[in-house]
Amino acid sequence: MDMSREIAKAEVLIEAIPYIRTFAGSTVVIKYGGSAMTDESLKMAVITDIAMLKYLGLRPVVVHGGGREITDMLGRLGIPTRFIGGQRVTDVQTAQVAEMVLSGSIGKNLASDLEKVGVGAVGISGKDGRTLQVEKKKGHHNEDLGYVGNVVHVDVTLIESLLDSGFIPVISPVGIGQDGATYNINADYAAVAVAGALKARKLVFLTDVEGILADVGDSSTLFRSLTVSQARGLMAEGVISGGMVPKTECCIAALDKGVRHVHILDGRVAHSILLEIYTHRGIGTMMTGDDEVGSNDQADSEVGKEEQA
Amino acid sequence: MDMSREIAKAEVLIEAIPYIRTFAGSTVVIKYGGSAMTDESLKMAVITDIAMLKYLGLRPVVVHGGGREITDMLGRLGIPTRFIGGQRVTDVQTAQVAEMVLSGSIGKNLASDLEKVGVGAVGISGKDGRTLQVEKKKGHHNEDLGYVGNVVHVDVTLIESLLDSGFIPVISPVGIGQDGATYNINADYAAVAVAGALKARKLVFLTDVEGILADVGDSSTLFRSLTVSQARGLMAEGVISGGMVPKTECCIAALDKGVRHVHILDGRVAHSILLEIYTHRGIGTMMTGDDEVGSNDQADSEVGKEEQA
Amino acid sequence: MDMSREIAKAEVLIEAIPYIRTFAGSTVVIKYGGSAMTDESLKMAVITDIAMLKYLGLRPVVVHGGGREITDMLGRLGIPTRFIGGQRVTDVQTAQVAEMVLSGSIGKNLASDLEKVGVGAVGISGKDGRTLQVEKKKGHHNEDLGYVGNVVHVDVTLIESLLDSGFIPVISPVGIGQDGATYNINADYAAVAVAGALKARKLVFLTDVEGILADVGDSSTLFRSLTVSQARGLMAEGVISGGMVPKTECCIAALDKGVRHVHILDGRVAHSILLEIYTHRGIGTMMTGDDEVGSNDQADSEVGKEEQA
Amino acid sequence: MDMSREIAKAEVLIEAIPYIRTFAGSTVVIKYGGSAMTDESLKMAVITDIAMLKYLGLRPVVVHGGGREITDMLGRLGIPTRFIGGQRVTDVQTAQVAEMVLSGSIGKNLASDLEKVGVGAVGISGKDGRTLQVEKKKGHHNEDLGYVGNVVHVDVTLIESLLDSGFIPVISPVGIGQDGATYNINADYAAVAVAGALKARKLVFLTDVEGILADVGDSSTLFRSLTVSQARGLMAEGVISGGMVPKTECCIAALDKGVRHVHILDGRVAHSILLEIYTHRGIGTMMTGDDEVGSNDQADSEVGKEEQA
Amino acid sequence: MDMSREIAKAEVLIEAIPYIRTFAGSTVVIKYGGSAMTDESLKMAVITDIAMLKYLGLRPVVVHGGGREITDMLGRLGIPTRFIGGQRVTDVQTAQVAEMVLSGSIGKNLASDLEKVGVGAVGISGKDGRTLQVEKKKGHHNEDLGYVGNVVHVDVTLIESLLDSGFIPVISPVGIGQDGATYNINADYAAVAVAGALKARKLVFLTDVEGILADVGDSSTLFRSLTVSQARGLMAEGVISGGMVPKTECCIAALDKGVRHVHILDGRVAHSILLEIYTHRGIGTMMTGDDEVGSNDQADSEVGKEEQA
Amino acid sequence: MDMSREIAKAEVLIEAIPYIRTFAGSTVVIKYGGSAMTDESLKMAVITDIAMLKYLGLRPVVVHGGGREITDMLGRLGIPTRFIGGQRVTDVQTAQVAEMVLSGSIGKNLASDLEKVGVGAVGISGKDGRTLQVEKKKGHHNEDLGYVGNVVHVDVTLIESLLDSGFIPVISPVGIGQDGATYNINADYAAVAVAGALKARKLVFLTDVEGILADVGDSSTLFRSLTVSQARGLMAEGVISGGMVPKTECCIAALDKGVRHVHILDGRVAHSILLEIYTHRGIGTMMTGDDEVGSNDQADSEVGKEEQA
Repeated sequence: MDMSREIAKAEVLIEAIPYIRTFAGSTVVIKYGGSAMTDESLKMAVITDIAMLKYLGLRPVVVHGGGREITDMLGRLGIPTRFIGGQRVTDVQTAQVAEMVLSGSIGKNLASDLEKVGVGAVGISGKDGRTLQVEKKKGHHNEDLGYVGNVVHVDVTLIESLLDSGFIPVISPVGIGQDGATYNINADYAAVAVAGALKARKLVFLTDVEGILADVGDSSTLFRSLTVSQARGLMAEGVISGGMVPKTECCIAALDKGVRHVHILDGRVAHSILLEIYTHRGIGTMMTGDDEVGSNDQADSEVGKEEQA
Repeated sequence: MDMSREIAKAEVLIEAIPYIRTFAGSTVVIKYGGSAMTDESLKMAVITDIAMLKYLGLRPVVVHGGGREITDMLGRLGIPTRFIGGQRVTDVQTAQVAEMVLSGSIGKNLASDLEKVGVGAVGISGKDGRTLQVEKKKGHHNEDLGYVGNVVHVDVTLIESLLDSGFIPVISPVGIGQDGATYNINADYAAVAVAGALKARKLVFLTDVEGILADVGDSSTLFRSLTVSQARGLMAEGVISGGMVPKTECCIAALDKGVRHVHILDGRVAHSILLEIYTHRGIGTMMTGDDEVGSNDQADSEVGKEEQA
Repeated sequence: MDMSREIAKAEVLIEAIPYIRTFAGSTVVIKYGGSAMTDESLKMAVITDIAMLKYLGLRPVVVHGGGREITDMLGRLGIPTRFIGGQRVTDVQTAQVAEMVLSGSIGKNLASDLEKVGVGAVGISGKDGRTLQVEKKKGHHNEDLGYVGNVVHVDVTLIESLLDSGFIPVISPVGIGQDGATYNINADYAAVAVAGALKARKLVFLTDVEGILADVGDSSTLFRSLTVSQARGLMAEGVISGGMVPKTECCIAALDKGVRHVHILDGRVAHSILLEIYTHRGIGTMMTGDDEVGSNDQADSEVGKEEQA
Repeated sequence: MDMSREIAKAEVLIEAIPYIRTFAGSTVVIKYGGSAMTDESLKMAVITDIAMLKYLGLRPVVVHGGGREITDMLGRLGIPTRFIGGQRVTDVQTAQVAEMVLSGSIGKNLASDLEKVGVGAVGISGKDGRTLQVEKKKGHHNEDLGYVGNVVHVDVTLIESLLDSGFIPVISPVGIGQDGATYNINADYAAVAVAGALKARKLVFLTDVEGILADVGDSSTLFRSLTVSQARGLMAEGVISGGMVPKTECCIAALDKGVRHVHILDGRVAHSILLEIYTHRGIGTMMTGDDEVGSNDQADSEVGKEEQA
Repeated sequence: MDMSREIAKAEVLIEAIPYIRTFAGSTVVIKYGGSAMTDESLKMAVITDIAMLKYLGLRPVVVHGGGREITDMLGRLGIPTRFIGGQRVTDVQTAQVAEMVLSGSIGKNLASDLEKVGVGAVGISGKDGRTLQVEKKKGHHNEDLGYVGNVVHVDVTLIESLLDSGFIPVISPVGIGQDGATYNINADYAAVAVAGALKARKLVFLTDVEGILADVGDSSTLFRSLTVSQARGLMAEGVISGGMVPKTECCIAALDKGVRHVHILDGRVAHSILLEIYTHRGIGTMMTGDDEVGSNDQADSEVGKEEQA
Repeated sequence: MDMSREIAKAEVLIEAIPYIRTFAGSTVVIKYGGSAMTDESLKMAVITDIAMLKYLGLRPVVVHGGGREITDMLGRLGIPTRFIGGQRVTDVQTAQVAEMVLSGSIGKNLASDLEKVGVGAVGISGKDGRTLQVEKKKGHHNEDLGYVGNVVHVDVTLIESLLDSGFIPVISPVGIGQDGATYNINADYAAVAVAGALKARKLVFLTDVEGILADVGDSSTLFRSLTVSQARGLMAEGVISGGMVPKTECCIAALDKGVRHVHILDGRVAHSILLEIYTHRGIGTMMTGDDEVGSNDQADSEVGKEEQA
């Protein structure tokens, strides 16, 4: 009986041991969006990965976006969409549609997809349990954006209660203002706020890029790990530019709030979450605070750090 | 200093004592719909009543409907609505819209209204945590109604976990089939299933009628309390007829599942829930199993029964 | 069906909501004495009020007096009573009679009255569980008063254990000295010591006056709320004089020990406790620390303060 | 260094090991009365013994009498005392005095004596927490005895709560009727009811006799152990007679309710409780159910039985 | 960036998901012996596998043998070894040496090897905490085998306490008799007794054969799964013969005691435990009760069964 | 019936009360060795004493030696033993034999002796649960002693877990190095390390001397108590000399680590542990920190101190 193929399988499991050991019990926040949310087979890979995190003893929390779906629904309802500086101007009607699409459709369906692979999940909006409390946000030039909010406080009671009962919270980026009104929130910022409030060990952004690249056209220039200082340097030098600037700022904000590692992953690669967390080589860019030792082979170094602690 | 008005207030509080004592710690399921959901001032009265139940130590659970809002949204989206035997024929597209409206709009807004008066609340759909598990339902003449479901199992884990953490669950009548698909559920039936699975002490239907009347045109013929046998007799005699028949059957089904009292209240009267539960006279019709002693003054008798236990 | 009377009832309940919400879980110490203890119908009103506090989620603790009853019993036993500066000179025999009357008669009967309205209660003396530990107290001119004690330490173990088990502790003002002897304690001082040690939210004195009045002959001059500074000013100016001086000093002492509000109520008004705590208008005088904002409508302001916290 | 005296001490401790092991965690009810309650040095020996039981890991509960003290107080108050068939005819006034003396004086003082030797204790009456619920008792010839009660139900909530908090409950034999009135209870019967309701391992009667003797004038005829059948036989033969008959019936009643061993001890011998429970030879008479193997050396046999279990 | 090798890794992890889900929280007893205990590299593979079980949420318990090491030590000490019917005749001296070698050398070293890979482990003998209680065992022809014992009772208190504290118990097959003497136990029988008492989900025998084969010389005739009936049939037909008979009887005995699956694995294949439990194909023979559906692909069927439960 | 002998027994028990009260719940580490371990009847007395400590509510921990038995076994195996400065030079082979004898024979047998008198016990080595972590120790003149270790860290997890589950840990002085190797540890030092890490109340050395004597030939010169300063003075003056110097240094080291009392007892006196702890007179020498008041009658002073605290 030739066992070699089987033994190779065992070796993959064995390779995962130090990562399983290191991360057991940790909270991981996943910002879910982009291609990984629209392509059905990628979607199932993400759902499976999140379930696996749960089985391996982590406490996953999902924050999802849904701009495209909101725009679609607004179109079907004949409501015009306007953007200022990349942000959707949100009147009462738009806010209602956004909430309905995010909380009533996308979030509930993600929760039910997770249920299908055997893990309990609950779709909540940031209004449930007053989880995401916001204040009105202005445009960059002080324009009135309507019901667009900045998270000013996260009440983690509901999230913690769901995690403690074994459910995965699936959070739609809708918040509640002091005035009781419903506000739309940028999903990346919502994820940062949630991860910070939970003191999550990891925040994972599923994106449509490979990570942070020195040369956007050349995959081989991927930064496997960056410290905050390095990232700031790259932004100053213009190496990080365009849409990666706000994403990078989100990473830095999360690290500032006490998240230990932020990962920018390519959601177009199936199982990118598992690969990043449980294999030596990893995939994508991991960002850490300056006091964390970075290396080209980030997952290893992270586990290595644990071993010495 | 004339104290008479003050003392009268104290007497109302004192009158409530035996009811507070009797019901503390009990679970109460409220089926919320009708005028009480559309008239803004009635809505605030209901929200306040539910908050009061929570402050007085009960564990309230809300199940809401929303047929009118679904029809509106379908209209705006140009999707035709068809009914067979009073039930909405629900294709995939209709099911998606229904879920979005129920879970993403109505439920979330009720939860956020409750938050505004200071009690924690969470809008969940029956798909979250696989709470409402359904099978496909056929029309009375075996017509295919599409994604319309009958609840076959309620997993109370999520509801209990929210109650134990101090939140009021606000449940939209959307279920999950064995096939993982989304099904629309009649809200009255959903409320019965939830109340039965929770072994609730009370199930309250907020309706647009005063209760069960011997003569529909004469308020003075209201039955204050009915046993299952009496109700069955009234249906057989045709005294209960029309739309009150399925409502009455819901009451009987809930009592069969172990709910102790089912109340049909007039949601058009402000604070009808508080009045029914915490004052001697009550309002509306209370239905009980045959082993419960009924009387014209139901709340009293119920409390009285408790006292002797 | 005319509902107006019923709806008025609901409004009283609704009026109570913010107070119920604010005070749930709080400890309230009630110093019980005066007419409210001797008039049978007032007594039942007080007992009912205390039971209501329990049903509304508070943790009531009762400290009672009984000077009149002690004097009666001493008289029946032919033991002469002597007072110095308003304090009873207490020899061994007198101390025994006082303990017997307070702990064996008054306290046990209050506990059993509370049991009759359905709440568990236990009559303890300050000697049980070494709850009230005292040192010998001298008269104002250093006279020997015998077994009269000042509380120097409260061991709250027994009181907390009874509260946690759902019982209302009914405490008689009898203490234990370092020498193991039994000491009589002024009931007002005992109540202050207990409220302070429990960090009670409220201390309520049931008295035979309406509260603190600017003109003792004119009810309309009642102070609805006073800060410590204001009270000190009124004593300095002689507005507060006579028997109200030591009572006021008790209030100040309790506030100093961390009690948040002290109420002087007219025990001759039925249900004065409920009226003070659960209605907007209140009754009697509420005293607070200087850092609490006072107002003529004290209960409201207190609740209002909570809302903003 | 001659160690023989020291080693003899160690042997006494060693002798106690199997008894300590066997009885740890058990509930023991002690009916306290007779000379052991009036003689100061015997009283201190009893108090010390009870404290020792607590230190050795048992859960002691004390039920005390006080007939003599009640009679004294009635005398001082000029209230005549009448007995029918050995039972005090108890009018309202007598009941009040009895309660006052038992709960307000004797019980509180026992609790405070226990506190002095370092164990927490609380004096409760059977009315506290509705612990002893009674019905009116008639005389043997159906005479009206007034407020004399038979225990019909023991609510152990308060007793268990005190034991769990580490306090020794000291219970005075005063009960509460369905009518809410205060009733006097025979202390032996109260002890039996309490021991039965607690499923106590042991019930100890401290008496003024050596135990059950075949010949009342001859100590050497002491029965060290008796089964229920043997005791019934001795009553039938008239060997057990006079005042020992009701005492023996109490023992039998307690065993019927599930108490495992009932001891009749000579309270005039210092430390009789410790000697009976923790030494081989024992003292007094131990009564057991027929299914327990009796022997002349009861404690041993009891421990022996345990060892084989 | 070519991801194919990485994605293949992810697929192995994904393949493990249903098994991880199914077995989380289960107790697995591993009988450790044979080549896997003497070959250093196989030993590290077993140690790693056991650690992995722990990281994946199982509760592993190890029972080890050590006949060879005992024989070696007896030889070094000049103590002759005699066997009757394959069982070591064990005089007092031999029993002492066996205990010393098993508990003092092999067990402690396994525990310390587990500690080296980061999981807590404790070497206990069956005498610790009276875990393995035995009676004297006779030879097949009633020969006196000396201190050889049959397990008659397992006290799981110590094992459960260690598991609950996060330690892996490593048990040496030494027991305690009623007489307090030390007895040697066959390690396979000890493992069966432990697995039965713990109601383990799995019992794994690490052996030096591939499993149960139809033709011992032909690996391709391996039975991947067998029911008890099938195994009994194979023994009756002589297909299972020689040393596999007692091993098979052990499997049946364990299934009788409530263990759900017993695995006979080839300890000579590195990571055979992980492969058997976490991959589709498995390795070795799995035996189940007749009520479990067997199949050629056992692990799948087992997981499949779970899904439907 | 002459009760005098019985009453004398009661007095011994009564004498023990303050000690029982003072020491309940405390951890006591007993270094067990010398004659008390080799003489069978002394051994049973020690075992009984340790069981008694457990019954009286203490948490005993045993650390044992076994040099003589190791030397015997090495002799039987023909392995030469070499000592440098009183310490055994320990090559790999010697370390294996030492571990086997200590953990596999002596420890397991002590645990099983404790089991025989009815208390649960578990023999662990310092390698189990990485309890005793060591570094290599050199001889006084820097000689290589082989696998001889100094304890550098005690992980109390396993010990605490066993104590909490009601077991007595019996620890053999074998440790684990950073390199994973097995090291021999001096049992006195191991006991000091364990007592210090547990913040034990008492550390008891069972020795073959009476305690610390001013004149080694004269028992009457026994120091009943010594402070650290006094002990240091006696060493400086040469009054404490020879083998008592390292023992005294052990005592001082334990007190430095927070142990409150260290006792040097004569293990040749039966029940010396009980006598020292539970009688007024005590036996042996008790050493305390300088801030503890010493006296000739140490146990009393210790208890006395407690009383005033």
